[in-house]
Amino acid sequence: MSDLERLVQDIAGIAIEDNPQIVKQKSRDFFWYSPVLKQQLDHVTGDLVVTPRNEAEVIQVLRACYAHDVPVTARGAGTGNYGQAMPLSGGVVLNLAEMRAVKQIRPGVVVAEAGAILSDIDEKAGAQSGQELRMHPSTYRTATIGGFVAGGSGGIGSINWGGLRDLGNVIRLRVVTMEAEPKVLDLQGEDLQKVLHAYGTNGVITEVEMPLTASYDWVDVIVGFKTFMDSVHFADDLGNRDGLLLKEIAPIAAPLPHDYFLRHQKFLRRETSVVVCMVAPFAMDAFTAFVARNPRAELLYRSDTATDAEKKGLPPAYELTWNHTTLRGLRVDPSITYLQVLYPFPNQVERVRKITELLGDEVPGHLEYVRFDGKVTCFGLPVVRYTNEERLNEIIKLHEDNGCPIFNPHRYTLEEGGMKQTDQVQLDFKRKADPKGLLNPGKMIAWEDPSYDFSSDKLFLFPGLQRGES
Amino acid sequence: MSDLERLVQDIAGIAIEDNPQIVKQKSRDFFWYSPVLKQQLDHVTGDLVVTPRNEAEVIQVLRACYAHDVPVTARGAGTGNYGQAMPLSGGVVLNLAEMRAVKQIRPGVVVAEAGAILSDIDEKAGAQSGQELRMHPSTYRTATIGGFVAGGSGGIGSINWGGLRDLGNVIRLRVVTMEAEPKVLDLQGEDLQKVLHAYGTNGVITEVEMPLTASYDWVDVIVGFKTFMDSVHFADDLGNRDGLLLKEIAPIAAPLPHDYFLRHQKFLRRETSVVVCMVAPFAMDAFTAFVARNPRAELLYRSDTATDAEKKGLPPAYELTWNHTTLRGLRVDPSITYLQVLYPFPNQVERVRKITELLGDEVPGHLEYVRFDGKVTCFGLPVVRYTNEERLNEIIKLHEDNGCPIFNPHRYTLEEGGMKQTDQVQLDFKRKADPKGLLNPGKMIAWEDPSYDFSSDKLFLFPGLQRGES
Repeated sequence: MSDLERLVQDIAGIAIEDNPQIVKQKSRDFFWYSPVLKQQLDHVTGDLVVTPRNEAEVIQVLRACYAHDVPVTARGAGTGNYGQAMPLSGGVVLNLAEMRAVKQIRPGVVVAEAGAILSDIDEKAGAQSGQELRMHPSTYRTATIGGFVAGGSGGIGSINWGGLRDLGNVIRLRVVTMEAEPKVLDLQGEDLQKVLHAYGTNGVITEVEMPLTASYDWVDVIVGFKTFMDSVHFADDLGNRDGLLLKEIAPIAAPLPHDYFLRHQKFLRRETSVVVCMVAPFAMDAFTAFVARNPRAELLYRSDTATDAEKKGLPPAYELTWNHTTLRGLRVDPSITYLQVLYPFPNQVERVRKITELLGDEVPGHLEYVRFDGKVTCFGLPVVRYTNEERLNEIIKLHEDNGCPIFNPHRYTLEEGGMKQTDQVQLDFKRKADPKGLLNPGKMIAWEDPSYDFSSDKLFLFPGLQRGES
Repeated sequence: MSDLERLVQDIAGIAIEDNPQIVKQKSRDFFWYSPVLKQQLDHVTGDLVVTPRNEAEVIQVLRACYAHDVPVTARGAGTGNYGQAMPLSGGVVLNLAEMRAVKQIRPGVVVAEAGAILSDIDEKAGAQSGQELRMHPSTYRTATIGGFVAGGSGGIGSINWGGLRDLGNVIRLRVVTMEAEPKVLDLQGEDLQKVLHAYGTNGVITEVEMPLTASYDWVDVIVGFKTFMDSVHFADDLGNRDGLLLKEIAPIAAPLPHDYFLRHQKFLRRETSVVVCMVAPFAMDAFTAFVARNPRAELLYRSDTATDAEKKGLPPAYELTWNHTTLRGLRVDPSITYLQVLYPFPNQVERVRKITELLGDEVPGHLEYVRFDGKVTCFGLPVVRYTNEERLNEIIKLHEDNGCPIFNPHRYTLEEGGMKQTDQVQLDFKRKADPKGLLNPGKMIAWEDPSYDFSSDKLFLFPGLQRGES
């Protein structure tokens, strides 16, 4: 009897899927936004998808996998873009999507199981208490709260609250360890750093406690500009208006809005760059006063005064932003890809100008304004008109040489996609919580190859990555 | 029959008070924080206090005052510190305190009559909808919303939302003009600038529409430090933590906390500088994690875990901050006064250090962290151990020479207490809305003396100021 067969025996009664087509489908995320990852990971699949209904079943699965040395890769909805939830060494894909209860809502706080969908949480919190989550990715309607916390960084709402990494944006994570007898830990305060954005490499998150803020019926707005830099100046100024409550500010360069936002095309000209905004309804008077101050700004669309006919079939504004911009682009032109850039404060506008000048329409601009360490600045998720990996790396280097760090979405490891250094806290926690190294193998370089030199330009290749031909 | 007698006849049925003691009392505010204003304004009094019950009565009063050339100075609770609501030329003190209805509460919005008390608004908004005003002065429990908008600038909550002057922090003001036939105007968006912080010199505010935000049962916290600069560094870092929801961050130099906060004295040592905070309850874990990172910080008091015995008799934390710090100081040592300083971003900490070094215990530091044009920086409301006006002016000059503008609380005019320049929008509006110049005379230099040179160091003396001996 193989390890897997013994495992299946040990977890009898828990939902298991072993149909290879379905297992492969549940082993994937949106890694294919990257032509590099597409080539590296396209063949990756787990052996089984296991779908626990509650924490007790999670414990049972981890205990059995530990006993039989089977890797476990936890997964929410698989909406990541870095291969976060892809089982590089096969084994069990631990599908948490059935653990989706919203367990408690009180002023400022929601407690939910890891598999709860973000928009479901907000629907319940809104109806019960007029509250919503502080931030969410553009995959709001499909992504899970556990997946967001384990594999995401911020998104719509980060203009007010910064990122998930910031103290206070997660209150508590309940985590099951991968040991002979799995432990259940409630991590709060400083301890959260152990498992936040660790891709589930050192524990399986079963429950999440998050801060809530006041919910509003956000108004979708598109403001048009003749040049991308006009849109950037507008967005930069807007983001610094302390009294104007917005949830999203995204400048996007022509011709992307017209070419990619097909449902909104009727409001857009091909030569128009835009800023996509979400504005609190009661702030619309102040917002339109702000727009009117700028002779270069033209209000192209606002959902609060649009007719039903105009609104028919339009996706929400947040599905034009963050990686939904890229997704809409890929649907129109599958040859493109993208990057993730930080334009550090206080030189963000000047650096955007420089990069735009250097790269023009090969890398059309797409910015996302956020608070970052207390200052308003922007990330870039520029579209890249992809030719080959060498040129992509040149473009990355060009950003870095101009003071704009890249969070490389063409790498599947925590470190290469992030800060390019060992996270000692997460590594130490993995030593205790996953002594056999069975959780999401291959994603934490510091674990796989302690001598790896992050300052080298070399790509980390996980030796345990199953090959396509295997 | 005198003008006043004719006026009284015209407004029969509206509440009038003419007892000189009561009229004088209702003609004063907290101008006496300033020894300079105390000398200049101590004798000031109106002739009558008129207390309308509704807007129709306000219109009736203004119509009659216009007809008989009687000055009108509108007043909320008289909690200002600049003599904002003091009738320099006598006439009618228009007491709006009876117009205190909270007329509408909906998501993000409250509509209230001008005389509504701030804490009353919040009590109603909290009970009905879990909401509260974005910001309030330390006189929360006595000040009116109309007075705050007409004579205030920000306060507790400004760390999140900036000041009242910022677009979006006031939604609508309903204003009655001072004409033969008074008009009622609803000002929104850009038009708000006409009457915001105009001391009622160009219209009488009868109704206010303000944004609301989520309300919480804020936790009062005092963190202690060995040096004032340690407390400033802590506060500066704290203010930039995007995920930590606080409503107030105020560093105060030793020995002020111990010497002035008598009810809290049991928690304080004389040599300890403090940061007074209000923290959202669900952020306390993250907040204590943040405090624990700083080996110089010591948590001295937190209301959420204090016993009833410890909490007995303590004022709320916000009544230790802004001008309540000064008020508590004046009760202990009537010889002190204060200043209002802006420490401009990004050099706020360095400038505080410089000023502290230069002035030491003659001007013990008290800072209030705020958002200002999108950046976190601080105002100062330092205590000044007052000797004479000449030295006070030297201290002011020393701040200005070190790049720290003073909003001089020893001046009663809009311009000298503010930006030291004509506000053309407000002046133009006064020309239309108060053609006879009867509203709060003497407060807008640009009206009284169009040729006044703001770059001179000369004090503006309103020729119409009634003299003590008159």
